[in-house]
Amino acid sequence: MPSTASAALSVFEPVLNQPLDGEPASRVLVAGASGFAGALVAQLVWNHPQLELRHVTSRSEVGTRLDRLYPRYRVPLVLGELEIAELEGVDSAIIAYPHGASAPVVAEMRGLGIRVVDLSADFRFYDLPTYERWYGPHGAPELLEGAVYGLPELNRDAISKADLVAGPGCYPTASILALEPLAKAGLISDVVIDAKSGVSGAGRGGGDSTHFVTVDENISPYRVDGHRHQPEIAEQLGIGVTFVPHLVPLDQGELVSCYVKPTREVSTEEIAELFRSRYADQPFIELVDNAPGVRDVRETNFCRISFTVREDRLLVFAVIDNLWKGAASQAV
Amino acid sequence: MPSTASAALSVFEPVLNQPLDGEPASRVLVAGASGFAGALVAQLVWNHPQLELRHVTSRSEVGTRLDRLYPRYRVPLVLGELEIAELEGVDSAIIAYPHGASAPVVAEMRGLGIRVVDLSADFRFYDLPTYERWYGPHGAPELLEGAVYGLPELNRDAISKADLVAGPGCYPTASILALEPLAKAGLISDVVIDAKSGVSGAGRGGGDSTHFVTVDENISPYRVDGHRHQPEIAEQLGIGVTFVPHLVPLDQGELVSCYVKPTREVSTEEIAELFRSRYADQPFIELVDNAPGVRDVRETNFCRISFTVREDRLLVFAVIDNLWKGAASQAV
Amino acid sequence: MPSTASAALSVFEPVLNQPLDGEPASRVLVAGASGFAGALVAQLVWNHPQLELRHVTSRSEVGTRLDRLYPRYRVPLVLGELEIAELEGVDSAIIAYPHGASAPVVAEMRGLGIRVVDLSADFRFYDLPTYERWYGPHGAPELLEGAVYGLPELNRDAISKADLVAGPGCYPTASILALEPLAKAGLISDVVIDAKSGVSGAGRGGGDSTHFVTVDENISPYRVDGHRHQPEIAEQLGIGVTFVPHLVPLDQGELVSCYVKPTREVSTEEIAELFRSRYADQPFIELVDNAPGVRDVRETNFCRISFTVREDRLLVFAVIDNLWKGAASQAV
Amino acid sequence: MPSTASAALSVFEPVLNQPLDGEPASRVLVAGASGFAGALVAQLVWNHPQLELRHVTSRSEVGTRLDRLYPRYRVPLVLGELEIAELEGVDSAIIAYPHGASAPVVAEMRGLGIRVVDLSADFRFYDLPTYERWYGPHGAPELLEGAVYGLPELNRDAISKADLVAGPGCYPTASILALEPLAKAGLISDVVIDAKSGVSGAGRGGGDSTHFVTVDENISPYRVDGHRHQPEIAEQLGIGVTFVPHLVPLDQGELVSCYVKPTREVSTEEIAELFRSRYADQPFIELVDNAPGVRDVRETNFCRISFTVREDRLLVFAVIDNLWKGAASQAV
Repeated sequence: MPSTASAALSVFEPVLNQPLDGEPASRVLVAGASGFAGALVAQLVWNHPQLELRHVTSRSEVGTRLDRLYPRYRVPLVLGELEIAELEGVDSAIIAYPHGASAPVVAEMRGLGIRVVDLSADFRFYDLPTYERWYGPHGAPELLEGAVYGLPELNRDAISKADLVAGPGCYPTASILALEPLAKAGLISDVVIDAKSGVSGAGRGGGDSTHFVTVDENISPYRVDGHRHQPEIAEQLGIGVTFVPHLVPLDQGELVSCYVKPTREVSTEEIAELFRSRYADQPFIELVDNAPGVRDVRETNFCRISFTVREDRLLVFAVIDNLWKGAASQAV
Repeated sequence: MPSTASAALSVFEPVLNQPLDGEPASRVLVAGASGFAGALVAQLVWNHPQLELRHVTSRSEVGTRLDRLYPRYRVPLVLGELEIAELEGVDSAIIAYPHGASAPVVAEMRGLGIRVVDLSADFRFYDLPTYERWYGPHGAPELLEGAVYGLPELNRDAISKADLVAGPGCYPTASILALEPLAKAGLISDVVIDAKSGVSGAGRGGGDSTHFVTVDENISPYRVDGHRHQPEIAEQLGIGVTFVPHLVPLDQGELVSCYVKPTREVSTEEIAELFRSRYADQPFIELVDNAPGVRDVRETNFCRISFTVREDRLLVFAVIDNLWKGAASQAV
Repeated sequence: MPSTASAALSVFEPVLNQPLDGEPASRVLVAGASGFAGALVAQLVWNHPQLELRHVTSRSEVGTRLDRLYPRYRVPLVLGELEIAELEGVDSAIIAYPHGASAPVVAEMRGLGIRVVDLSADFRFYDLPTYERWYGPHGAPELLEGAVYGLPELNRDAISKADLVAGPGCYPTASILALEPLAKAGLISDVVIDAKSGVSGAGRGGGDSTHFVTVDENISPYRVDGHRHQPEIAEQLGIGVTFVPHLVPLDQGELVSCYVKPTREVSTEEIAELFRSRYADQPFIELVDNAPGVRDVRETNFCRISFTVREDRLLVFAVIDNLWKGAASQAV
Repeated sequence: MPSTASAALSVFEPVLNQPLDGEPASRVLVAGASGFAGALVAQLVWNHPQLELRHVTSRSEVGTRLDRLYPRYRVPLVLGELEIAELEGVDSAIIAYPHGASAPVVAEMRGLGIRVVDLSADFRFYDLPTYERWYGPHGAPELLEGAVYGLPELNRDAISKADLVAGPGCYPTASILALEPLAKAGLISDVVIDAKSGVSGAGRGGGDSTHFVTVDENISPYRVDGHRHQPEIAEQLGIGVTFVPHLVPLDQGELVSCYVKPTREVSTEEIAELFRSRYADQPFIELVDNAPGVRDVRETNFCRISFTVREDRLLVFAVIDNLWKGAASQAV
């Protein structure tokens, strides 16, 4: 029988306070919490014993409870509008807005003294012309100089002191972690990065391109003319980069396969020691002997890296969860 | 570098004439060819040696070449608007419109003397009140009486003579083929049908509900209050039906698991003979000993059926490809 | 170049002590840790702040480090043989052996005074003839009487005091949680359970039947003549059960769709109240309005339940993660 | 109830003669028909109007009907042993044996005058030392000289006259088709090929590595020290090749992403013309503007190719169905 016979039952009552261990270290706003990355940020903050999730906001889903939109998560808060006037009591904000939309909001929040982690590309570039070439006009260029590129393995100290942190792109996170020790040692001048990502990396919209029937039993390259993450990787590493992303039929996970002609002959032992010493104190880097799969790091903040020295080239592989390490968990 | 460096190359030239064996038996229009079912119909007509694909139309994708929209298919025709005035030379039409939108178009075409196969629900019911209870007001109720329910295994002769054929729903196709021999023999009064369908059954739209990330690694029931295919099955079989569909993470394929308490004790041999004799001359029915999987019939027009007589109940399983047998290939 | 050029590098050094908060509450052996359920048990014990993972054993993979066999988990212990003589210092054991192989091992361990959670079917039945009819001769029937059926929502107190706990089957876990409130209230005499499980439920072996190419883009019923979990559900609920499992193309997750003709007329409000009061104090039961998907409970210990009262039948749906709630996390 | 209540029903009677159009052009034996490639070869021969499928053999599944082993295919023949004595009346043989096992069988068949298509690597190399370095000792080196590398787009005439054809590897098929026009024009000296394959490429065995739970939601590189298809590609193209394969969670399909630094500056128009003229008369090559996905060629004999000229490199992408074009359909 059509819907009339249906249950109007509501047994799943809101639980409005998250369990905290004493006074929270920070009261957090998550803006753009209806997107994949924003929703996961909200969930991680909600579960975090030292953080209080004060507000969740959305531009498209105001009035919806977050745990209805994402039944998988368990955050029983209603998505609100972002009212700058009502931000009293908020210590820090994580902004999960699209590129371009983020900069003006960040500027307003910084004006109120709120500490900001911005997940868009708006504050990832030191070089304004590079940003504008790939993304268009910038909404708050005066904040670029004070922003810190938020990859903890590169900038842990600066991040802890910064008022504006730019969350790295998912592909740059994996690519930079795979290649930075080699680039810093002067062993690379140019690299091919063949990247593969699960579909969550494409975000909640997408229409035909993220429809199950388009993606299932398929793998294809995209943005073959040049993807916006290429200049981000190139700027951080200071080398030439040929970067091509591919969409693979899985939910969360990202693999970068890096092909390098080293600037001089190298040995397995030398490269091993380079990675080992570089990442000795990094709790979220796992160096492994065998080439890793994205499944190994699913729903974790780990980046797993392996390499192989061959006659023809030096290969480096890195895997992350694009939603966790590649966006949300890194931000938290 | 952004798109400027990209190739403006067009190597894939249109091939406008499909290969025919002599004069076509019918010149065919496919309306609604931008949807999953419509596109496959177009592809099957295009490849058919006795049919000529005269026009393909769409309401949302006018001007797009069909093989760009569906790179998997190889129909190099441009989708046009449906102009009733330009239908001269069309012998038959296959309409892949949503329920409700179909009836008025069908009425116009029938007025021009065009033979119509309609894939919507608009002409599937003998009983107008049942239609209106589940689908709303009917746009051309006067045509209901002359329409034939287009399941060849039930109505082959009538279909070949009919001017208006109603393509059965995908779930009804599998369910009716599984249960009709039992219902006709008076062995069923009531049945539980637990149905599982791949995502193509949900169509090209769907937003969040057909996003890869929603469906992947998931299985869930939907329309648990009552799905519109339930009354269609019940009307054709003349029995009580409890029908619940489930969405499974695969592209094409549909399984119905049917649970029956027979009206009297039955033996394996008796049921086997019932199916064997009923389907002896049906080229697209495959009776098998072991419970089938949807993979067995992927991209075919076959329906594969097995059954098991147990102490507790009689079980019947049937699998089809929901896009082929469940919609497009059956129509062609 | 063939393997000679390969890195013999081993950067991933064993970490042999897990972090504990003070003295462990229990020192745990996991036997059969090379299987899917056993490996997850080992991982959960390893991460548990009050438990110490003392030994992991295997019959087929002795000498392999667990984190090499399952790169996804992070337990750096080497799988050993199960030497009864070396169990000094072990307080409790979780046995993940196949049916039949488990009983003699359990008997030995109980003889040493070790508390045992057994994940096989060997101690799940109160009724020995039922066990023997479905599984064959029993290896330690004298222990059956003292064993407790390990579903916390049914037997939480008894479990906490028991020396031998029988971990429920995955399908019975979901089915019993879905139906027990109705059975106890006398509303059911007979039920159809159409169950769907991810492939991890089939275990690590399986050959052709668990090969990716067999399962992918497929769904099919199996054991249609009668699955061993049917009598387990029937015994616990005390009703007639028609149970048919299906294999779906996903890793972890299980859905049971239950079709009931209630013994008398029922209302939505009445059933809602029944579930609400029954599960008021159960932290791992989530009652929801909308039919759940297995994705909602992936990698959690939750069971999510919904129901719908229809004219034709009462429907109940329950989802669990078959490896977590259905086996490993429930045991821990 | 355990299996006794089960149906012993056999409704699916063998159909022993395939429909032929008059006298067959060739009577064909398929050896190794229990593997993925061999089974598909058998199915394609069975359906082919000018071929007669005379025998199907297997080393591991003697006595099994092929349509029971692969319910998806519809070849109702029983797998037999390969008895060289019983090959009278066989005109040609397609051998789907593993590398090494094939050569002696091929030698025997050639001794009987049977035309052979061998799908293993045994006759793919002109250079014996290269073969032996990667595969070990060769069982019939005297036949190497007369063997033709069976890629129709390279050697169509020679194939039609040859008595021994070596079916190309799946990765070489896609890689060579993508790069041969560039290599022949002297535009390449060295290439990175990042290849991605569905799981059917790994064959029917595989144990843990092809278990659904290993592959699902995963992507990982394998054979990173050097895969045997690398020297095959290098020999055919006469250039340096860095080749790394990856396993992706899909059934059938293969994508190669090729990264080239051309030996001189090139334009989009020039490369387009190169491909267009090279493949003008090749019915199974599809040149496309947009980067293709493996789904576009699923279950076809097509290879679809696109390219992009960028400042940093020239990119070429090619997709095939690894079981069809990459093995079976190419052979038939």
